[in-house]
Formats: sequence, C-alpha cells, structure tokens
Amino acid sequence: MKILFLCGGIGKRMYPLEEDKFLLKFIGKELILHHMDHLKGLGLKEKDFVFVGNPSNVDKLKELCGEDAEYAVQKTPKGMADAVLTAKDLLRGEEILIVNPNDVFEPSAYEEILKKKEGESAILGYKVCKYFPGGYLTVENEKIKEIVEKPGEGKEPSNLVNIVVHLHRNSDEFIRYLEETESEQDDVYERTMDRMIKDGFDFRVVEYDGFWTAIKYPWHIFNVMEYFLNTIDKQIVNGVKIQESAKIEGNVIIEAGAEIFENVVIKGPAYIGKDCVIGNNSLIRGSHIGDRCVVGYSTEIKHAYIGNDCWFHTNYIGDSIIGNECSFGYGAVTANFRLDEKNISIKVEDELVDTELDKLGCIMANNCKVGVNSSIMPGVRIGSNSIIGAGTVVTKDLEPNKILFFEGEQMLREKRMTVKEKKEERMERIKRGY
Amino acid sequence: MKILFLCGGIGKRMYPLEEDKFLLKFIGKELILHHMDHLKGLGLKEKDFVFVGNPSNVDKLKELCGEDAEYAVQKTPKGMADAVLTAKDLLRGEEILIVNPNDVFEPSAYEEILKKKEGESAILGYKVCKYFPGGYLTVENEKIKEIVEKPGEGKEPSNLVNIVVHLHRNSDEFIRYLEETESEQDDVYERTMDRMIKDGFDFRVVEYDGFWTAIKYPWHIFNVMEYFLNTIDKQIVNGVKIQESAKIEGNVIIEAGAEIFENVVIKGPAYIGKDCVIGNNSLIRGSHIGDRCVVGYSTEIKHAYIGNDCWFHTNYIGDSIIGNECSFGYGAVTANFRLDEKNISIKVEDELVDTELDKLGCIMANNCKVGVNSSIMPGVRIGSNSIIGAGTVVTKDLEPNKILFFEGEQMLREKRMTVKEKKEERMERIKRGY
Amino acid sequence: MKILFLCGGIGKRMYPLEEDKFLLKFIGKELILHHMDHLKGLGLKEKDFVFVGNPSNVDKLKELCGEDAEYAVQKTPKGMADAVLTAKDLLRGEEILIVNPNDVFEPSAYEEILKKKEGESAILGYKVCKYFPGGYLTVENEKIKEIVEKPGEGKEPSNLVNIVVHLHRNSDEFIRYLEETESEQDDVYERTMDRMIKDGFDFRVVEYDGFWTAIKYPWHIFNVMEYFLNTIDKQIVNGVKIQESAKIEGNVIIEAGAEIFENVVIKGPAYIGKDCVIGNNSLIRGSHIGDRCVVGYSTEIKHAYIGNDCWFHTNYIGDSIIGNECSFGYGAVTANFRLDEKNISIKVEDELVDTELDKLGCIMANNCKVGVNSSIMPGVRIGSNSIIGAGTVVTKDLEPNKILFFEGEQMLREKRMTVKEKKEERMERIKRGY
Repeated sequence: MKILFLCGGIGKRMYPLEEDKFLLKFIGKELILHHMDHLKGLGLKEKDFVFVGNPSNVDKLKELCGEDAEYAVQKTPKGMADAVLTAKDLLRGEEILIVNPNDVFEPSAYEEILKKKEGESAILGYKVCKYFPGGYLTVENEKIKEIVEKPGEGKEPSNLVNIVVHLHRNSDEFIRYLEETESEQDDVYERTMDRMIKDGFDFRVVEYDGFWTAIKYPWHIFNVMEYFLNTIDKQIVNGVKIQESAKIEGNVIIEAGAEIFENVVIKGPAYIGKDCVIGNNSLIRGSHIGDRCVVGYSTEIKHAYIGNDCWFHTNYIGDSIIGNECSFGYGAVTANFRLDEKNISIKVEDELVDTELDKLGCIMANNCKVGVNSSIMPGVRIGSNSIIGAGTVVTKDLEPNKILFFEGEQMLREKRMTVKEKKEERMERIKRGY
Repeated sequence: MKILFLCGGIGKRMYPLEEDKFLLKFIGKELILHHMDHLKGLGLKEKDFVFVGNPSNVDKLKELCGEDAEYAVQKTPKGMADAVLTAKDLLRGEEILIVNPNDVFEPSAYEEILKKKEGESAILGYKVCKYFPGGYLTVENEKIKEIVEKPGEGKEPSNLVNIVVHLHRNSDEFIRYLEETESEQDDVYERTMDRMIKDGFDFRVVEYDGFWTAIKYPWHIFNVMEYFLNTIDKQIVNGVKIQESAKIEGNVIIEAGAEIFENVVIKGPAYIGKDCVIGNNSLIRGSHIGDRCVVGYSTEIKHAYIGNDCWFHTNYIGDSIIGNECSFGYGAVTANFRLDEKNISIKVEDELVDTELDKLGCIMANNCKVGVNSSIMPGVRIGSNSIIGAGTVVTKDLEPNKILFFEGEQMLREKRMTVKEKKEERMERIKRGY
Repeated sequence: MKILFLCGGIGKRMYPLEEDKFLLKFIGKELILHHMDHLKGLGLKEKDFVFVGNPSNVDKLKELCGEDAEYAVQKTPKGMADAVLTAKDLLRGEEILIVNPNDVFEPSAYEEILKKKEGESAILGYKVCKYFPGGYLTVENEKIKEIVEKPGEGKEPSNLVNIVVHLHRNSDEFIRYLEETESEQDDVYERTMDRMIKDGFDFRVVEYDGFWTAIKYPWHIFNVMEYFLNTIDKQIVNGVKIQESAKIEGNVIIEAGAEIFENVVIKGPAYIGKDCVIGNNSLIRGSHIGDRCVVGYSTEIKHAYIGNDCWFHTNYIGDSIIGNECSFGYGAVTANFRLDEKNISIKVEDELVDTELDKLGCIMANNCKVGVNSSIMPGVRIGSNSIIGAGTVVTKDLEPNKILFFEGEQMLREKRMTVKEKKEERMERIKRGY
C-alpha cells in the first residue's frame, strides 16, 4: 500500500501567505507530519509514503518526511491527474490512497477508509449540513453512481461531498485510465473517476461526519487551529518557568524553554511554542503561538495564529494570522471588528470574498514590521518583508517589500506660558520685589 | 398631600446628552425613583405623586413610576407655571409639594420641609458659601420677605437660595394666583410667589445645608455621581464571580451577574452594574458603570459616568460621561487634561461656559463608536450615533449621526534591506561560496 | 592639599539637556557630591575643596557643596588652563588634585593617585581596550615621557589614556608654567604639561582599569546610570507602602515616601526616588527614576533615566533620558529601535554622531509635555518647555519652547445605519405592523 500525498500545488488564494499550506505548523508539527503520524498509528511505515512535490518544496519535504519515503517532482502545477502520473512509477502494483494534505480531518477518516473491504475504489464522503460548492456523490447501496460537481444549492443529489482521500486498490488500472482521459480543463482526475464509474468499476463511499476543513483561504487557518487546539490537554513541559502570579487555565500546551512572567493569564485552549517569553500582564486566549516568540509587556493575543520568532510589545492581536519573524511596536493594534459591524470581505484574485467572519484582524506574511501606535484595519493583508511606519492607520492591503508611512503636515508654534508657568513667573517676580 | 414633579422641561444645555436628566440612573435607579423612594420613606404613597411630563417622556414615566400615580402632559415646555397649571385638576383641595426632580439633595430636605408646621407656604433655602446665580431669599424671623433673582455677587440679601422644593398648603389659592399672573417672560411662577408674598401670604424658609446640586450642564452629572457614590457601603451581590487575584477596595457595589477577571483593581467608591464584565488588569476608581458593560483587558476608568451596554478595550476613560451602547476600540483614549493646564470651557448655545474643571474628558451621547488608537481631546462632545475612525485626534465637537475620520496622505516606498537581512544575505553568499 | 573641581565649562554637546553634567543626580545625590563623598572617605574635608564654577552655577554649587569649600568663578568658559588660573590664589603653596567632575570613575582611582608617593605630578592613566580619541601616555618605567593627543587607531604609544585626575605637588610651579604657556587654541593646559615633561619634571602614571566614563553626549548618561545602579544593594526605606501583589526583585532602592501599587513589578537594578507613586501593573526595569514621579497605570519604564516630578500614564519609556517635570499622556511612547535595525545617529553641532546604540529612545529636556497616543521616534531630542500634541509622530528634533502638533485633514460623512441598527429598525417596523 502506498499513501500518495499531493504536495505540488500552489495556493494563490492564500496570498499574502507564501508557505505551502501543509507546512503550516500546529501543536509543534507541520500539517503534513500530522497526516503521516495518523497513518503511522494505523501501521503505515515511512517507506509507504509517496510525495509529489514541486521544485520549491521537495527538499523541505524530504527533510521533514524522511529518507525512506519516496518523492516525485511535478515541474509545473498542472492538477491532480498530472501529480499522480508524475509519481506513477512509484505506485505500480500497489494499492494507493491519494490524499490532499491541505485537507484537515480526524484520524478516524483514515481508519474508516483503510478498513473498507468492499469495492475497487473508495472515496471519503463528507456529510455536509448545508450547501458546499464541491463534488457531490450520488450513492446507491453504498455504491457511488456519479460525482456531480457543484450542483447548486437545492440540487444536491445527496449530502455527501467528495473529499480527496481516495483509495484505489488497482493503481495500474487507475493510472491507465488517467493516461487515457483527455480534457482541455483542469479536471482530468475527476473525469477519470467518472469514466471508471460509468465503466462499472465498483466505487464505494466511506461516510465521514467528523471534523473536516480544506485550507483554501488564509482565514481557514483559524478552523484548523481551533480543531487542533480542541484536541489538546493541559501540558506544561518540565523546566518551563512560570511566575507564581501567572495563571494557566484550561487546556494549554507550553513547550520547553518558555518563560511566563508575572500576572500573565493564559486561557486555554492555547499553544505556546518552544522558548517563548510571555511578558508581564499579557493575556493569551484561544491562540496558537510558534517558537521563540516574545509576547512583550501587556499584550493581548486572542484567537490568533502566530508563526515563529515574532515580537510583540503592548499590542492587541485578535483574530489575526501573523507569519514568522514579524514584530509589532508598542501600541500597534490589529482591529478585528468593523465599526459598521459588517462581515469582513477580502478581494482574492479580483473576486470579493465574504469571509463570513465579523471578527477578523489582519493577515500578515513573514518578516514584517509594524511601527508603534499603528492601527491595521480588519481584514487587511500585509505582504512579506513589509514595514508599516509609526502611527499609521492601514486601511488597504500592503504589497510585499514595501514601506508604508504617513507623511502629514505638522505645525510648529511658539509656546505661550502655561497657567502654572505664569503663576511661577508671578511668584518669582513677587519674590524679587517687582 | 400631593407631590408634584415637574418633568416636562427640555434640557438643551445638556447637549449632546438626550435623556431627561431625572431619568439618569444612579446606583441602579433613575433619579426620579430616588426622589420617590425618599418620599415613600416619609410615608407618601404612589397615589400621592403627580407627574407633569411631556409627550416624549410620559410613557416612560408611567412605566417607571407606577399606575397609581397621576400624570399630566405639558404639550410644549412653557415653564414652571404652565407645568403646574397643566396638572391643576389633579391638585385641587390638596396641600402640594412642588419639586424639580433635576435637583439632587439629601432626603433630609424632604423631611424638614414636610414637618414644617408654620406658614402657608414653605421654600427650601439652600445655604450657599459663595455666590450662585439663583433667587435669594430675604428673610426676617423665618418669614420670606422677598425673592431677589440673581442679585449679583456682594449684593446678596442672605446666604439662602431658592430651591424648587416648594410647599403650598392651599393649592387652590396658589393656582388662582398663578392663573392671574401675567408676564411676557418665563417667570410667571416667580412673579406669582412674589405677588403672594407682597399680598401678605406667610412664606417660610426651610433652611438646608446638606448636599445639593442642580443638573444644568452635563458635567454636573459628576457631582451627582459623587454624591450617590458617597452614600454607598461595600456590597457585592451573591453570585458575582471575582477572581482571586482581583481586589475590591473601599465602598464598591457590584450588582448581580457581574464578573471580575484576574488582577483587576476596583477602588471605591464605585458602582458596577448588572452583568458587567471587568477584564484582566483593569482599574476602576471613583466611577459609576451601568449594566451589561464590558470593560475589556487593561482598561482604566477613573471618575467617569458610564451608561449601559458599553464596551471598552484597553482604554483610558477619565472624567468622562459616556452614554449607552458606546464602544471604544483598543487604545482609544479620552484625554482629560489640557496640555496648557487651563480649565476646560465648553460652548453651550453660543456661550463659552467655564466648567471650572481642569480635569474633564469627553461627553458622549448614546450609541457612538470610537476606532482603535483614537484620541478625544478634553471637553469634546460627541453626538449620538456617531463614529470616530481609527487613529483620529478629535479636537472639536462631533454632531450626531456623523462619521469622522482622518484621511491623510500615505507614502509608499520600496523597502531596502535591513542590517539583519544584509547580514543574512552575506552569510548566504559566503555559504554558497561566492 | 586642595581638590580643584573644574565646573566652569558648558556642555554644548549635551543639547537638549541644559543642566551641568556634574549636577545630574544618581542614587539620590548629584554627581559632584559623589566625587566629594569619595574623597571625604579618604580623609579630605569640605575646606579642602575648591570649585571653579561659572556665573550660572556658582550659587547652586555653593548651596550643594557647603560654605567651608572655596569657590572661584570663571566668567567665560575658556578652557582648563583658564579655570585653574581663575582659582590660583586659592591654591598657592598647596598640593593640588585637579579633577573634571564630568568624568565618572570608581573611588579606587582617587585612592590610588592620592597614595602615589613618587614623582612631582601624577596622572590617572585609564587602560583602554580599544582606540579612544583622547591623549595617550607614553610611559617608561612609570614615568610619563609624552602625551600624544589623538594619535589615531593603531598608532597608540600605549594603552593608557589621560584622565583629568591630575596631581601636582608643587602648585606654584604648575601655575607659573600655565601662565607662561601660550597657545592660540584651547590647549594651554595640555601644552603646559608637555613643556613641564620636556623640562624634566617627573610625571608619573597611576594606572587604572576600573569603571570610567566621560559624559560627553547625553546618551553617556546611560553608562553612568548603569554604573551607579550596579553599585547598589536592595534597600527599601521604612514606611514605603508596597501592595502585597507588587514584586520587587533584585537590587532596587526605593526612597522614603514612595508608594507601589498593585501588580507592579520592579526588576533591579533600579532606583525609585522619594515620594514616587508607581501605579497599577507598571513594570520598571534597569531604570533610575527621580523624586516625586508618578508612574501611572500600566506604564513600562525600561533602561531609562528619569528626572524629578515627571508624570507617566500608560506609556513605554525605553532607553530614554527624560528631564525634570515632564509629563506623558496616555499611550504616548518613546520608540527605541529603528524599523531598519540600524544604530541611532544624532546630529551634534553639524556632525552626525553614531551613538553606537541600536536601542535608544528619546532625549527630553525639562518641563516638556507629550500628548496622548503620540509616538517619538528613536534618538529624537526634545528641547525644554516644549509640547507635543496628541497623536503626533515626532520624527525630528524639537527645539525648546515650541508646540508641535499635527494638523491633518479630517473627513466628515453622514452615517448610514449599521447592520444592527437596520435590524432594530426592521424589528421596530414589524412590531408596529408595517
């Protein structure tokens, strides 16, 4: 059996974030490693994994996922079919489980599909409660009769949506079909399955109603964060220094080397990475903070996902996603609620997308700096390596590698004496006798 | 005996505040109800009260003051005489006590005037220490000989000022006089008393030197707040959740359903209304906070009167009056002290009035929103339903239903590498061997 | 023996600070008094001290240093030779120790030079580790052969630099030489010593490798502050009120009359002057705070030197020097780190001087006021009696007696209803039946 992870795609809709989504870390581990660990828990070995990466991420993948696994490189991101075919020589004669590692679900999904005995292929079918613009499975007696792409609300043939956790017992047959399918669009993979079903291959659904999310837009990271934070228990690694007046409440992980200063309150669920310093009086709630962050004096971090090596100093970071190596000057704030109380919408590739969130702070890529007393408006995206000057109100997205600052007119006046100074001057004159 | 409350007037000088002054709540109860309760404590019953309201407030009055009381409606606010005459049919044959419920005084004032046996009428005479621009009572052997309106400093006939707590034993006579008095100005009531005194009616003074204030301008609310706060004892209602590290010091009332978070300090006298949440590290001193307010993380509220349903988040609210349903973004501040240390003056109906306060923050009507990191200058008035954008310095009054925001020129520059980035780039080049 | 303190000079490079450097207070005592006390510890008496002041400071010097000491006044600041000659009548027939009291060094330096028995003159020679632009001592067998002014890096004749702690056993001879030396530059004193050495006078070096700093630029105050803070032990004067939840850690002096409020943390070394109030939640680290300062609610003071009578209110004061009687409004901040991570450079008399510090906040003279939410950029100097308006970003130096404020364009718009208001309006309409 081979597990095939499709890691070659490029997530343009994740702008300004630049990392591959499956490399995002949760609870101290990249998402892709969470997938592997779930599968290892079911008996899979490192050598059973095949990764299709791209030229930019294959080295990182190898480093992370081990030398016993196998790797293929998809030169350009041409879709799922191309990805599978890129790796075809590594899959011959094997049962294969194809997984999109940007999807997040519970280990039970793997368990259920792997123990499925019936059928030649099996597809994870996610039970939805409301319309989702994906592929719906038409099912009769557990057998999939058709996959209907985006049927439109009210026209769904079932409540089961196709999740890319696909088991194909006969990979050779599947690959042959893939190679023979023609399409001018990016849907060769879907057409292949369609053709196979029509040709009478026995495709089964594995119903799943646990947690599932696909990281499509940056704000979906919140869902994943919440999922992982809800899986943790309280765990404070030995040697973590916590001042007596600090309070750690609920399910909170604090990793090795961290220091928690006076009067800090951390309300779980929350994750504090290695070697973090949480400064005096800070409050952290429902957040995920990477390694080596310094959360300086009197900072509040609420429902935020923070990368590694970030610095804060008396800030409010709420409902925000902050990349690695970002720093915030004193008093800088991510506003997270519109004054008109509307949902926050974000323009993604010329389309204005309603995030369906009325609380959303900022989305900031790696290595940004924010000046003191700056204010970033809800839903603003800051590109990597950018700088926001002191006292700036940021109402629009900022591209990578830019400096934004405010250049207003300042007035200079001669000072007249204050009441106190006048009084003192009068006293002085009286003392001197004139 | 009938108690006649004059509730029909309109307090233009209270702008931007829109509520009737006697409906302001102190210690959980509207001012008018404090008056009623004081009188009930002296044996009066609900049916003994008569209210002259106006079309806008009579429903609210009925709801508050009970069905057994009697109500009259003054169509337009034409002064005290008109108010009394509006209610004349409810007063026939009764002793009457006429009260301006916008005045605040101690229960003893009622007690003293009600137990006064001598004379046909009695007037509460407030002992002043310095000149007050009101009506002064010329008194001989307890009998009032004349009422001198605004005599001017140094020309006062006594130190007793006429407070509208007026007892008339023979209401029919008083009403007849009122009806017969003619004036082209808004002084029919005063002229009536003048005429009666001159005609030999026996008007007595009831001297009073306890607390008294008339709410004329918004900042007089501070006096009333202080008065009520000084009457309270420590009282924390059962079930209020207070974190162990919080500290409640002095005379503080905390109403039911409130929650006090970690490291909060509340220094009495202070009043915290029902279902309030006081967030981590906040400091509240000498303030009065209405129901259902959320005083978020690290907020300082000092000597302020706050309405219901307000939200704060890391703010300083000092010497300010804040209406209902207002919200303040992170870092917003009410500056309360001029940099030139002068008293704060406020323009009221074309007149610049010296508040005689050198500490005065902002006066904000209902349902306003203040953006993050905004600064409101001392004495600024914000009309109801207005919004102040993020990072705005508000130096002037803002009318109701407006949005004020700053639209400055922002500069965008390409970023050059930082020292650290240059160092890293050099290290990278060295590693790569060039 | 006479100790001659040269107090007549004017430190232009200390702009914007206006005090004489030797009058700066450390650990409750002016620098000049520290010098005196060190020498008194070695047996010197008040009458043994001679001060050369200038017309502006001689009164203050007399007041501080006592009536038994002797004083001379240098009319204009004409250099060291002129200073010594100004006091020559007070020095006749005495051994003299000439000291520049703007230098700070350990008491052992005095001890060593005073117990030196050999030679006719002795000079304190400070052992440097790296090039310093001063006078280097060429030494053979403890005898000084030459003093080489600013030889340039790599051309130093030794590692010993001339510090103005100079012992001359025969003051009459020294004065005679001074009077005979001619120069068109400000180097008569140096030339005199040069001539004497060449004429065969026996000048000895007293080597010294303890702490030494000359206060040349304002930021050198940090060195002196650190030196003094490193000499202290924990000492909290009786009667200081410290709330139970406050924490004083390490070597901290708190002087009489101070009050420390709830949840304060003070991390030594630190000095808190008389009658200071340290407000709730504040954090003070490695700082020196003068008398009667109010460090209001939630303020962080880190590695700063603060004068007397300053007021803070929710500020960050980091790596800054703040004069007397300054006040900071809520949310005002001294930024102390450039967003480009460069060292901070400061223009001193047309020369851009690299402070060699990458952390430097602001340098503020006496009696300045900073408005709420203002941001002062790293290394900015604020002249005395100046005011910075609310919400101002100060990027350039501000001269004394100025008011700087921002006058930007503000927009006013009619407010449209919020989602909530629309909902309420709809509910209202439904209730009313239309």
